[in-house]
Amino acid sequence: MDQNDIDIRYMRMALAEAGKAFAEDEVPIGAVVVCGDTVVGRGHNMTESLTDVTAHAEMQAITAAASTLGGKYLTDCTLYVTVEPCLMCAGAIGWSQIKRVVYGAPDSKRGYTTYVNSSPFHPKAVVSAGVLCDECSALVRDFFQKKR
Amino acid sequence: MDQNDIDIRYMRMALAEAGKAFAEDEVPIGAVVVCGDTVVGRGHNMTESLTDVTAHAEMQAITAAASTLGGKYLTDCTLYVTVEPCLMCAGAIGWSQIKRVVYGAPDSKRGYTTYVNSSPFHPKAVVSAGVLCDECSALVRDFFQKKR
Repeated sequence: MDQNDIDIRYMRMALAEAGKAFAEDEVPIGAVVVCGDTVVGRGHNMTESLTDVTAHAEMQAITAAASTLGGKYLTDCTLYVTVEPCLMCAGAIGWSQIKRVVYGAPDSKRGYTTYVNSSPFHPKAVVSAGVLCDECSALVRDFFQKKR
Repeated sequence: MDQNDIDIRYMRMALAEAGKAFAEDEVPIGAVVVCGDTVVGRGHNMTESLTDVTAHAEMQAITAAASTLGGKYLTDCTLYVTVEPCLMCAGAIGWSQIKRVVYGAPDSKRGYTTYVNSSPFHPKAVVSAGVLCDECSALVRDFFQKKR
């Protein structure tokens, strides 16, 4: 598989996580952390069920990955997340030293790129945006349409 | 007591939290969340003991406050933290809708003000910096000197 196929494969797993959030009436965002060819952390948005604004998909996945790997730095890992990380999650990604961030849909309102004037990630980290963008954004749009 | 005295009183509590971190060999940063005249959340940095880069003092205090109050928004609360919040914590403070942020020492390297081009907080949130600045920064300096 080339990198593009690999990215699509893991983004589908992140979408499956987002689907869990949707089913739990949470804003449907999901994330997975991958190390080599192994998923070491998964998470979906749980802010409502945990009554905790910090319980975003990325935070859950990063914490899970650190627990799996037994260390707090995720220097050899890639994070896949269905929607552009917010400022909080971007900061957490930076602290974790994740080396690659792949996200699906942009978030012009709450995404980190709207707020920062320099990269919040590890200096060598690479960002890829737009993987399965339409599916990732459609899930969020459907969620809010259902809410109205 | 005027507001200045109140701020010093709660910053001393945040410093006491930071002292717990110091005793646990964690970077000594502490935080308290206050609602009216009641402390509803406390926290200190636990990134090493929890092997979790997201376990900053503010994150712990915000999560604790939401648990105490039974709701995820802290709209009537003030956060006191000994050191300028990082990007992650600034994002969490924004999501929580905390109305006032009081911090002690600036952090020119990792503080949120180094990274953002617009406020990450609630549009009506007020920020006060420099309360017990010398004590807050001395604790961190002592910690890193001890480490060398």
